[in-house]
Parts: sequence; C-alpha cells; structure tokens
Amino acid sequence: MADTTTRTAISPTRSEDFPEWYQQVVRAADLAENSDVRGCMIIKPWGYGIWENVQRQLDAMFKATGHKNAYFPLFIPLSHFEKEAAHVEEFAKECAVVTHHRLEVGPDGKMHPALSAELTEPLVVRPTSETIVGSAFAKWVQSYRDLPVLINQWANVVRWEMRPRLFLRTAEFLWQEGHTAHETEQEAIKEATQMLEIYATFARNHLALPVYHGKKSESERFPGAVQTFCIEAMVQDRKAIQAGTSHFLGQNFSKASNIKFLSRTGRQEFAWTTSWGISTRLIGTTIMAHADDDGMVVPPRIAPSQVVILPIIPKEETRTTVLEAAEKLRAEIAAQRYADELIRVEVDQRDLGGGIKNWDWIKKGTPVRIEIGPRDLATGTVAVSRRDQEVKEKTFNSSTEIVAQISNILSEIQQNLFDRAKVLRDIHTVRIDTFEDFYDFFTPKNKEKPEIHGGFALAHWSGSPEAEARIKEDLKVTIRCIPYDEEIREQPGKCLFSGNPSPCRVLFAKSY
Amino acid sequence: MADTTTRTAISPTRSEDFPEWYQQVVRAADLAENSDVRGCMIIKPWGYGIWENVQRQLDAMFKATGHKNAYFPLFIPLSHFEKEAAHVEEFAKECAVVTHHRLEVGPDGKMHPALSAELTEPLVVRPTSETIVGSAFAKWVQSYRDLPVLINQWANVVRWEMRPRLFLRTAEFLWQEGHTAHETEQEAIKEATQMLEIYATFARNHLALPVYHGKKSESERFPGAVQTFCIEAMVQDRKAIQAGTSHFLGQNFSKASNIKFLSRTGRQEFAWTTSWGISTRLIGTTIMAHADDDGMVVPPRIAPSQVVILPIIPKEETRTTVLEAAEKLRAEIAAQRYADELIRVEVDQRDLGGGIKNWDWIKKGTPVRIEIGPRDLATGTVAVSRRDQEVKEKTFNSSTEIVAQISNILSEIQQNLFDRAKVLRDIHTVRIDTFEDFYDFFTPKNKEKPEIHGGFALAHWSGSPEAEARIKEDLKVTIRCIPYDEEIREQPGKCLFSGNPSPCRVLFAKSY
Repeated sequence: MADTTTRTAISPTRSEDFPEWYQQVVRAADLAENSDVRGCMIIKPWGYGIWENVQRQLDAMFKATGHKNAYFPLFIPLSHFEKEAAHVEEFAKECAVVTHHRLEVGPDGKMHPALSAELTEPLVVRPTSETIVGSAFAKWVQSYRDLPVLINQWANVVRWEMRPRLFLRTAEFLWQEGHTAHETEQEAIKEATQMLEIYATFARNHLALPVYHGKKSESERFPGAVQTFCIEAMVQDRKAIQAGTSHFLGQNFSKASNIKFLSRTGRQEFAWTTSWGISTRLIGTTIMAHADDDGMVVPPRIAPSQVVILPIIPKEETRTTVLEAAEKLRAEIAAQRYADELIRVEVDQRDLGGGIKNWDWIKKGTPVRIEIGPRDLATGTVAVSRRDQEVKEKTFNSSTEIVAQISNILSEIQQNLFDRAKVLRDIHTVRIDTFEDFYDFFTPKNKEKPEIHGGFALAHWSGSPEAEARIKEDLKVTIRCIPYDEEIREQPGKCLFSGNPSPCRVLFAKSY
Repeated sequence: MADTTTRTAISPTRSEDFPEWYQQVVRAADLAENSDVRGCMIIKPWGYGIWENVQRQLDAMFKATGHKNAYFPLFIPLSHFEKEAAHVEEFAKECAVVTHHRLEVGPDGKMHPALSAELTEPLVVRPTSETIVGSAFAKWVQSYRDLPVLINQWANVVRWEMRPRLFLRTAEFLWQEGHTAHETEQEAIKEATQMLEIYATFARNHLALPVYHGKKSESERFPGAVQTFCIEAMVQDRKAIQAGTSHFLGQNFSKASNIKFLSRTGRQEFAWTTSWGISTRLIGTTIMAHADDDGMVVPPRIAPSQVVILPIIPKEETRTTVLEAAEKLRAEIAAQRYADELIRVEVDQRDLGGGIKNWDWIKKGTPVRIEIGPRDLATGTVAVSRRDQEVKEKTFNSSTEIVAQISNILSEIQQNLFDRAKVLRDIHTVRIDTFEDFYDFFTPKNKEKPEIHGGFALAHWSGSPEAEARIKEDLKVTIRCIPYDEEIREQPGKCLFSGNPSPCRVLFAKSY
C-alpha cells in the first residue's frame, strides 16, 4: 500500500509507470481527451489556452521576420499529391481520403455515401501542404521581383495514426506550416536555419525546454527535403522528442509544382523553397518535460492563467469582504506585465471546497496560487504558493509586496523550470566512445522496466547508413541530430561503429 | 470606348455588372483566389490579415462574456451525425465523406484509395459541430454545478457547394462556432440573444455594417434549432446577406446527444443548448458593402495595414533621406493608438514605380496613404490621401500634425463608411402595404438588368408559411428576419398577403 504521507495527486507516479502517468496528468489537468473518432482528440480549454499562447507568441516572431499568414485548402487532389515521389510514398500510408460529396439514405434506412456523388478524383485531407502551396506559388511567382514569398499557415492536418497518444501522436493535430520560396539556394538555406533558430529560442525562452539543434541524417529527413533541421528536447524518461523541424527543400518541390521565375539575368529558373513547422505535439513535450507527480506544471509564459486567486470563505458573513479583496488584488496584478504581456490572473469563485479548488490548480499546473481569507485580511497578508516548489510550501506576503514582486516571481519560476530540465538533460547526456558502452547505455538493466535507459549518447559516427540502420534495429535508437551546438559536437574523432574518421559527435537517443 | 477621364481601376463597375465587379475587386485587392480544388479558396495574406483582425477582436468579446476556446475533431462518425433528424437531413446533401485511410499504387501505376483500408464507419468532414460537441458535453456535464458550459471553436468546415463564389460560398470556409449548455431554457435564450447582440455590435462598430437584427421565420431556421436569431446587412446591389446567426436549440441536441444533468431538485434533466457562428463570409459581405469602382475599401478597425507610407524617390541620391524620413514617420505613427490597438502602419519599400504602388494600395483599400518625397521634406509636409474620399484628393499636413491626427482620421473614415452604408440601406428600405406594390418592388424594370430591384421591403405578415413559400417561388424573396429593431417593426397591422392580423412588419429581401 502507498504511504499516505507521500501520496501524490497523480497515480501512478513517473517512476512507477511513465506512459500511464502521462495519460493521468493530461486527464487531471483537463488538457485534452480522446474523442469518439479514433485517434482524434478534443483539446479542452486549459490545453487550448496553452496552444493559444504558443500561437500568439510564435506568430509574433514569424511576423517580426517578415512572414505573413494565409490559408490554403484542406483538400489536396490526388494528382497534386503524387507530384513529388518521395513525398507521396511516405504520406500515402497514413492519409484520410474523401471519395464522396453527399450522403443518402440506403435500403437499410441509414445514411451512406451516395453512389451518385462519388468524386472523379479523390481528395486527400492534407497531411502537410507542400504540394497545394507549391501549385499556388507557381501562379504567384513570375519574376525574381516576386521573391521571396514568405508565408505561414495555422491549420489542422491529418495523418492516420495506428497507435494514437494525446498530443504526441493524434490522427488530426493542429500546427503551423511555413512555406517560402527564394531566388537563390543560399537565401533558402538561410531562411530554413533562421526558422530553426526561432524554434530553438521559442522552446528555450517560452517553453523552458533546453534543446539541442542541428540537422538530421539522410534517413531521418522529411520526404522530399534536401536537408532537415530540427530541435530535440529530452523529457523525463530520458527519451528525445523532436520539438520542431525546418526543411530546405532545394528545387524538389519547385520542379514538382513548376515554380519558375525570370531571373535577374533573364533566364527561367526554378525557385528554392523551404518549409517548417511545429504542432500541438509541443504541448505533449512540455507536459513530459515539466509535469510532476502532482500533475501539470505550466511554464509561466504559456500559462492560460499565470496566477490564480483562491478566496477562502469559512463563514458566509465574510464572503463579501473576502471576494472584494480578491477582486482588488486581481485587478492590481492584472495591471502588471510579465515578459511583455499583461499578467493573466483569475479569481476562482466556484462554489467548491478550498482544498478541492487548490488541488485543481495544482493539477492544472498554474504557476502561482494566492490564497486570501478573513485571517489574511486581518493581518494584511496573503499566502503565496509556487508550482515550482513543494505543494505545501507557502510564503506570506503583503498584497502590496506580491503585486510589486509578481513579475519577478513568474520570471524566477520560468527560469527554474528551464534549469531543472537542463540539469536532468545534462546528467543524462553522456559521451560514449566504445561500441560496448553504447549498447550498454541503451540496454535496460531491469527487465521489468524495459523503458529505463541511459538517455542521450554523444558518439562519433562516420556517416554510414548501415551502422545507423543497425542500432535502430537492435536498440530502437536513432540519430536525433548532427548538432550545431559546439559544446556537444566537439572535435573530429573516430566512428564508434566503423573506426572511420568522424567530423563531430552526433546525438543518439530513443525517441517519441 | 470608356472615357479615360473617368476610368476606374475596376472593370466592370458596380453598375455595369455587380457580380463580375465583385470578383474583380477580390482579385485586384489580392484578397483570395480559387484553388485547384473545386469550390475551395486560397485566402491570400491581405484577405487573411482581415480575418485575423476579425478573429482577434471578436475573440476578445467572446472571452469578455465568459467563453473559452477549445478544439473538437474535424471528423464526425456517421452514426453521430444521424442523431438529430432535421440536422442530418439538411447537411447530408452537401458533405464531404472520408471512406479510406490509406492510398496504394494500383495496377495502373497510380495512387488509389487502398481497398484494404476502407473505414468500417465513414467519417463526415464537419459541416458544423453540434453533434460532436454534444457528445463531449454529455461526458462533461453531470450536475447543475457543471453548467453553464461556454465554449467557442475557431475552425474550418466543409459544405459541398455547387455554385461557389469566393468568400460568400465556398466548399471549405473558416468560421467560429460557439456551443453552450445551460441549466434553464431562459438562460439559454438569454445566451443566444446576447451573442446576437455581440454580432450586431461587432458588425456595426468593427465592420462599419449597419445591420438589422431579429429572428428567422420557421422555414429559415437552422436545422434542429427551436429559434434562429440573425443579423442582416444590405450590400450595394440592395440584396441582403445574413452576417451572423445565433441558435436557441432547446433540448433537441441535448436529447440527441444525451446531455443530462442532476438538477438542483435532484432530478435528471436535459440541458438547454445554443450555438452561434460567423464565418469568412463576413469578408465577402464587407467587400460588397464598402468596395467601390476603384477596388476594396477596408474599414480601419479590421485593416491589416491602416496606414501605408509611400516613399517617393525621383533621384537615387534622395533615397536615404526619404527612406529615413519615412521610417521615422512610421515609428511615430506605430506608437499611436486607434480603437484600443496600436496603429498598424507600413512603409512600402518595393522597388516599383510610385504610381503602381499608389494604385496597389487604392485597390487593396488601405484606409490612409501617405506620400513622402524630397519636396515634402523641404516643405516639412506630407501628402495624405483617404480611401473614403476621391482617389485624387490629397491634403498636405506637417508630419507632426499627421501623427497627432491619425487616430481621429481613422475614426472618421470608420464612421463615414458606416454612415454611407446606412444611407444606402435606409434609402432602399421601404414600407410596403399592398400586394401589388410588393410584387412591383421586387420585379426588375429592365430585362437586361434582372438583378436590379427595390431593396428591403418592410411589410406586415401574419405568419403564414404558404405566403412565404409563394413569394420565394415567385420572386426569390425571403423573410430575412422578424426584426427586434423598433423603428422598422412598427405597430401591429394587417398581413399583405392574407389580410389577417400581423404583430409587426417583417423584413423581406432577395439575398445571397
């Protein structure tokens, strides 16, 4: 039996059963739930509120670098989809196909797709939009003067999933997809790497996720890309999650879609394109990185409510005074700014017990909780709890102090979450120099805990796809990236698998 | 041949061919275009920028009234969709149906839906989400304490269109759909009417659209609704466009989806639900209401760029000075506020002739254009043009003056657009008291211009569906709403069609 003195709000705990713990956190924090449509989730207000903050903040970064939003059709005609060979081969396995445009009542009295309304050409529900955007760009671009085209789209996409998991892997998910076209190869590469840097900055500063960034090996590239760049985060079971990708597509898609322009030297040339995206998967990554055995822990910058005020009303006659004080404090905090935005604060006025409400917000992971009751009014203080500290820990501050300090407190919490995740990652990121150590690092020691393994391995690799395929087969370990980060690349060395020269260490891990 | 002294940027003009004029305005302003997918549009950055402003501003109004955003699946299982009889009957005719979840290469070497991946139950691409939201609410709501549930969703929906028209009628469109559940009938009706008022306020104050508001007759109700409320705008060919609807759904959908709760008196009761929505159709309405023979005219509050600065660089040696002055002015204007938002202003630095750039922005309908060139720098003035005035009209102001006045100028333009639209509507809104006058009002006088007719008719109607059906058949005229607006309802009277008593005048019109 569990020891009640250490009982946690989430059962099982992370160390007991990480995958099940994750599902329970999503449920307890009311972030999302499975729908009646296989593999499709319902994103509930608290989860969607996080997504709205991600959207608003990233969108501002896209616009500051000259991108504009647009919207392209949900459906892609099959003939378009087939234009880029590698692309269609990959996505064909998992796409939802629309074949009819009407329902009618059948002989059984039930609705069926109407035979007379079968489409001449089936439509694919977009799994990504390179081909449909490409055919628009082909019309928009005539001359070098029309370049660059810098477009982003916020949209839903569908990739049929056989083993769905809330946020991490769902048949339908929300994302943004940037699509750009350029005059030169160099300019397109610069765009793709610029967007990767934006993702890395966003992950670090907004999601409190330390990430490594670099490029993918050939086998891990986006289908149709010349080069794929990515950011990789470690979550608490030491696995990697790819948290954002940016692709240099060369002229592959411009040739497939015929995006040609009259160059400065008067010749017809194909444009150089890029695409880049992040999705609601980032929410899953944030949960796995920061949540604890009491539930979700939301980094302040993306928290739908950064501060929640909990009025304590032991006797009915104190109600008005307490609620007035709570509202006054709310208004004062709401006038403060943190990270260039007004602070998001609410008073929980629900007619429920104080303990239930407090635990609700712990499980939701709101960064700061402030209790205010009749005794506090008498002493002129309020009780402040931070989600980055022990659940029972409270400090007592005057209202004036808390209003003056709230922005700093949020900033400290944001930094603490980042630091904590970085310590975890750094401890479990190991330089490995022998084949035996590599296999040992990724081999579970306890058969009952097959998921426990070393973490991130930094090892030399000569570039051989065979070695890469073998460890994937043997250990389910892949090259997450060939890093840009100097501190982990290190100097050239000797490949662990082949003994051949290796330009730098690469990052190996098991991943979601 | 056209007289060049009065040549307009858009050909044909409104009076020459209104439907074609509309298409040309959408094209010239670069708002949207047809895609390669039948009936689906691409919303281009200038059009999408308008939509982003609509979203942000309406979203703030929804949140201020306690609504939260969430996200529900794109797909609806056929069995869910069938639950509400009136609902499925209406939407079955126009829905896209997903039947397969994989493609494979066929004997012809091309991709086809994989026979082995046929879905057991087809999925309908949502035309609206009452049924899928209802099944979630059924899980969320157990007790009266869980009510009200106040949810909104921003999403894409699909309704197969046989005669698509950009923005007004497209197979896929973007919208918001509010879905709420309440304890009592009265509370749900209050919610539905509150949201109608929000739409009316938004249309008037943000889109500069004078609208009448009221309820629909039974035949025009949303399938499954007990009552449908709407706002109706008149556009420049005197037709009506329904610009937003709000539905009181009674217990129809809660019975279909089993949204039950334990009431305060300890009984199991069905919840009372509402739904309400506006879509990208509003952009079409705004174009038809405000654009002129020189292109789009965007109401300042929703303009992606409210002010555009056009640097005039006649000689290369003046470039730096002019661009610096333009950038300085931009920064000063960007620090000003209009309607509670920072002013959106940009410098058009494109390497194109001044005339081309100026006409580009006229056609896009940006509210204010400011030209700044070497001569202006010498005199310390800039040339200001307003899109609500003649294209050639300019006033010369000092930069300081224009910075101080810009918020007022935008406010004046917004008001002028509203006033102009209201004058047009009021002139063509006529009280009609005889059957003969009614038919005459809606009968075209010129066979070559069959679209020209009187406009809005206010007439007494006893509530007879037969009379309603007959004028729809004869004249393509429908009851747009039974108005709430006192000034057009007037006193009880006698029905034009039957001679029976009528409680108030109702609004008749041809419509989009």
